[in-house]
Amino acid sequence: MGKVKIGIMGATGYAGEELIRLLINHPQVEINYLSAKIDKPARIDEIFPSFKGKIGLICEEPDIEKLNRATDVVFLATPHGFAYKVVPELLKKGKKVVDLSADFRLKDSSLYKEWYHFEHKEEKLLQEAVYGLPEIYAEEIKKARLVANPGCYPTGAILAVLPLVKNNLIEEKLIIDAKSGTTGAGRNARTELIFSEVNESMRAYKVNEHQHIPEMEQELSFAGKQEFKIIFVPQLLPLNRGILTCVYAELKKDCSTEGLISLYKEFYKHASFVRIMEKGVYPQLKAVQGTNYCDIGLVVAERKEMVIAISAIDNLGKGAAGQAVQNLNIMMGWEETLGLR
Amino acid sequence: MGKVKIGIMGATGYAGEELIRLLINHPQVEINYLSAKIDKPARIDEIFPSFKGKIGLICEEPDIEKLNRATDVVFLATPHGFAYKVVPELLKKGKKVVDLSADFRLKDSSLYKEWYHFEHKEEKLLQEAVYGLPEIYAEEIKKARLVANPGCYPTGAILAVLPLVKNNLIEEKLIIDAKSGTTGAGRNARTELIFSEVNESMRAYKVNEHQHIPEMEQELSFAGKQEFKIIFVPQLLPLNRGILTCVYAELKKDCSTEGLISLYKEFYKHASFVRIMEKGVYPQLKAVQGTNYCDIGLVVAERKEMVIAISAIDNLGKGAAGQAVQNLNIMMGWEETLGLR
Amino acid sequence: MGKVKIGIMGATGYAGEELIRLLINHPQVEINYLSAKIDKPARIDEIFPSFKGKIGLICEEPDIEKLNRATDVVFLATPHGFAYKVVPELLKKGKKVVDLSADFRLKDSSLYKEWYHFEHKEEKLLQEAVYGLPEIYAEEIKKARLVANPGCYPTGAILAVLPLVKNNLIEEKLIIDAKSGTTGAGRNARTELIFSEVNESMRAYKVNEHQHIPEMEQELSFAGKQEFKIIFVPQLLPLNRGILTCVYAELKKDCSTEGLISLYKEFYKHASFVRIMEKGVYPQLKAVQGTNYCDIGLVVAERKEMVIAISAIDNLGKGAAGQAVQNLNIMMGWEETLGLR
Amino acid sequence: MGKVKIGIMGATGYAGEELIRLLINHPQVEINYLSAKIDKPARIDEIFPSFKGKIGLICEEPDIEKLNRATDVVFLATPHGFAYKVVPELLKKGKKVVDLSADFRLKDSSLYKEWYHFEHKEEKLLQEAVYGLPEIYAEEIKKARLVANPGCYPTGAILAVLPLVKNNLIEEKLIIDAKSGTTGAGRNARTELIFSEVNESMRAYKVNEHQHIPEMEQELSFAGKQEFKIIFVPQLLPLNRGILTCVYAELKKDCSTEGLISLYKEFYKHASFVRIMEKGVYPQLKAVQGTNYCDIGLVVAERKEMVIAISAIDNLGKGAAGQAVQNLNIMMGWEETLGLR
Repeated sequence: MGKVKIGIMGATGYAGEELIRLLINHPQVEINYLSAKIDKPARIDEIFPSFKGKIGLICEEPDIEKLNRATDVVFLATPHGFAYKVVPELLKKGKKVVDLSADFRLKDSSLYKEWYHFEHKEEKLLQEAVYGLPEIYAEEIKKARLVANPGCYPTGAILAVLPLVKNNLIEEKLIIDAKSGTTGAGRNARTELIFSEVNESMRAYKVNEHQHIPEMEQELSFAGKQEFKIIFVPQLLPLNRGILTCVYAELKKDCSTEGLISLYKEFYKHASFVRIMEKGVYPQLKAVQGTNYCDIGLVVAERKEMVIAISAIDNLGKGAAGQAVQNLNIMMGWEETLGLR
Repeated sequence: MGKVKIGIMGATGYAGEELIRLLINHPQVEINYLSAKIDKPARIDEIFPSFKGKIGLICEEPDIEKLNRATDVVFLATPHGFAYKVVPELLKKGKKVVDLSADFRLKDSSLYKEWYHFEHKEEKLLQEAVYGLPEIYAEEIKKARLVANPGCYPTGAILAVLPLVKNNLIEEKLIIDAKSGTTGAGRNARTELIFSEVNESMRAYKVNEHQHIPEMEQELSFAGKQEFKIIFVPQLLPLNRGILTCVYAELKKDCSTEGLISLYKEFYKHASFVRIMEKGVYPQLKAVQGTNYCDIGLVVAERKEMVIAISAIDNLGKGAAGQAVQNLNIMMGWEETLGLR
Repeated sequence: MGKVKIGIMGATGYAGEELIRLLINHPQVEINYLSAKIDKPARIDEIFPSFKGKIGLICEEPDIEKLNRATDVVFLATPHGFAYKVVPELLKKGKKVVDLSADFRLKDSSLYKEWYHFEHKEEKLLQEAVYGLPEIYAEEIKKARLVANPGCYPTGAILAVLPLVKNNLIEEKLIIDAKSGTTGAGRNARTELIFSEVNESMRAYKVNEHQHIPEMEQELSFAGKQEFKIIFVPQLLPLNRGILTCVYAELKKDCSTEGLISLYKEFYKHASFVRIMEKGVYPQLKAVQGTNYCDIGLVVAERKEMVIAISAIDNLGKGAAGQAVQNLNIMMGWEETLGLR
Repeated sequence: MGKVKIGIMGATGYAGEELIRLLINHPQVEINYLSAKIDKPARIDEIFPSFKGKIGLICEEPDIEKLNRATDVVFLATPHGFAYKVVPELLKKGKKVVDLSADFRLKDSSLYKEWYHFEHKEEKLLQEAVYGLPEIYAEEIKKARLVANPGCYPTGAILAVLPLVKNNLIEEKLIIDAKSGTTGAGRNARTELIFSEVNESMRAYKVNEHQHIPEMEQELSFAGKQEFKIIFVPQLLPLNRGILTCVYAELKKDCSTEGLISLYKEFYKHASFVRIMEKGVYPQLKAVQGTNYCDIGLVVAERKEMVIAISAIDNLGKGAAGQAVQNLNIMMGWEETLGLR
């Protein structure tokens, strides 16, 4: 049986680059089509010299017909506001789609409009799309045609508190202080992203105004059957890859650090990519970079009845391309770790 | 009239280096004595080549008699547990002392023992010592013989919320998520501090166990006449200098972002080194590095009745040596900005 | 007597920012005019938040008449191809000009056209302009109306070998392997300069094709009264500020490391900003960042009859704005170190 | 047939860590023994948290008997001066050995003593050992019991000029200006390696005194049947992984850039891990990090009859652990790229 044929739209961004890197080494697939917003067609190994000797495919402006002919599964690593225009046609042709943009994440299309400033026209597909966090929706992903791959910040934040939320252990107000490497800001030529501006500095941005807030609130509220309200302060770090997320929550009842660590280990015992730290150990970005892992450390601040949950992911791994490949594996009925170790 | 003669103990650490850098350019002083724990005496411009052509003083093992003969004012940039042994003798000889270590910061000597594992024997001096945060204690510093220069994290955290605390606007539980550059960890040869370990990574450490917690609780409780309980998560950043501190607090009553910004501007109007950002602007480390400034940005998360206060300082500037020089200026009756602009 | 009034064109680039930083603290001047290519006028302390509380001047599109009314001395930190259009008018109005661009550096206007692709129309001024390297041309700078401030790479390279060249000690073929921080590439939004591209990487660029080659060849040939041929490999470093230059040259006769170090110390004994390292010590960027120093280390590879000269400068200091202020000081008859220590 | 059993001595250094990372994913081997100079035995996934969930082997002080029982092949990633003490016993027990230290690289034991200050006692093994650069010695490696894995700098430098040397195209004097990431300096707690010292700085070290000089001279002289004399300036970069090497050589006869690029492509056409850049393109560290590739770019400086060859490798990849695994593959008769793509 032949390999599954893959197309990637948005191949010249960092998530696109990471998808290519992962899929080149995936035993069950071959990459057959690459597109991007690009001045003129170019070999992908000239755009990313690290691919020299590994893949020489041409990357070109999107051509949906060609894409349809060449592929079985399509990854969309495109900017927000693009996917909802092409997904209907791809699904009609029988393709499976993993959309790394935000277009199909928010079930309430008015929230999408409010936070992303695009008007969603695919209400039905929106309801059909499965939120691609396997630690919650593995069963649904298995049967999905369309997976909405989670945002990087939501992945780190949701996994950090999911066992608490599912077990009704925390109050509704969550404080999320998250720090991200610069690939999270995309491969865009903007003055505030050039090296000399970012290096040796750090700053908060979009404080309490980041578009990932409704996504986190939606999924935590679904999971906890309780409305969660999120205070979110994203910050830009002078490093390439990784998100360190500290979540602060009030406990509804007395818990010990040891007790919560046990709870987490039990909760995530079948999760291939979640690792729970022992007491007194906290995750570090170094340990998850280039991987699909989410590492989580926990502590209860006893006198103050609060829990602090700290997670580390690679924003391009579990926060984007790695998770997208994990979703592909689940959609295709393969071992979920294929090509990710 | 001659220049004031300065001695620095602990001259080979980062705070010592920064003190020298600042005092070389200070118009009213001259550095006359340098000591450190050091294998053999060495020229300070060989230890720190940036001083070549500026200062060629020998740095040697501490010699209190020599120090006493050579200086009028002594800065202690020594490890914790050293200052309380030498300060009594220095004061007896009429020296003024600025202690950058923690030895004289905690008024309750049992807390010092609990958090620093040294036994304090100078109870009276402890009560006499003035906590060197000029934004609170300028009047007391003017008259002080012994100033306990604040810790780096406490400086950033206290300044971030002082106007709220003084105006009784926030609840007792404060969440402080602080990120520090590596000079804050000192100039020590430890494996976890070598470049390849820190670079491209980030981690939390001493979560809720950091020795700066009692210092922050003491000073905020004094200032607010109310007990504050602090959740504190310090994190190590892959950059040299700077602390970005996010403080999350519940408001006791309705406030607007604009209202709080006005309050802060009024509160700090005579503070030479505190700058309040306009609405929607947040401090960045880049803007304070190498300076004695503390930049503060604010936002009220309205639906959630919380305030987020974000401050940026240079941990070696306002967080250590800069503030120590500011304290010197105040103690000597000079303009507090002398040598700091 | 009042302060000298300064105008800066190109104020929003890194050299412009550094000029402002230096001139704010300069005792004899005040900055009265700022312009740049800018969408709309803006306060300079909003563009560069580090200036908050220090200078609030508006930066606007260039207005030569306003500039002429407001200033005595003009610094041009503008892109190449701009200065030669405005300098004639400025000089006519009696201004002194320090041009940080390349427009007036190359005495042969055909070389300027070949390497910079602009056509020079001010042949006479070109001959009048003084190349602003005080270690060679201090006397000429004193009397100059127009100083062509040297390029960053030429400053580091020329100072590294000037004593050898002046003493006729080396052969004509020079290999210059130079590594520069990213501020040298300017404050431009280009994809290859964004953090995630530069960080953790390094590359050579414009190998043997860099526009600073004719400038180095011109000045070394003038100094040595012998034609020099330069092999030049510039490389981009993942750090903000600094150039480390290694120059490899064949010795015309037997020399010892000690002998050359003595020669350098003698040669530069009146140079305020050149520091010669002792035998076995080599310059590091850390020691010159934020300063106007050029540190130089030397070694003779005896068996191979070659000398290796290594210099370190701050590309925005001695390599641009610092040197420009040094030139200002000399032009005005002030102490050349004013505002630079 | 079972997997080949691997032992690693020196498992807690950076080369050891990278060996583990590569061998975990290698389809033909399993890691069965880990040792290091270590205070007390510890799980390797506690020492390197990135291995959590992948390998939980205990790392302990070396125990040769245990090692002999547990393994078929041994990698020595130990400091210089250790391998020659244990290799004889390992070989006697029939193990194959890849030694990543310098102990068996220099055929002349007096050179080893001069540069490494240890006395070699295994003269016969020294002559038997094969220098593990597959681009030269693939045939010998196939039959070897003991491979001396090349140094990181020599790998980058030799590959950069090997086709020139083999074709007798360059003069004997080579200038090698090489810049290395900090993992090359090892995982050692030394003050000059801590983050705040290395970050934002750069410096040359051991100028013309580095212990890799005799190794480069030996191998280039063997390859070229002509004595080469090397000027070598190693420099420390503020990044984790990668070496960028610029080699400057005088051409013996007229060559064009295009001609040399063709020559290199032909020369390396069977080399799985050498990639030759097109004209005008130069290698960058980003493209080789985490890989076993050596990228090479070339240019002839025509007027000056010199060639500049620039190579990029990952010092832990092709410069250490990657090349060691490549050697393992060749020794075992496997595809040389196994586990390296």
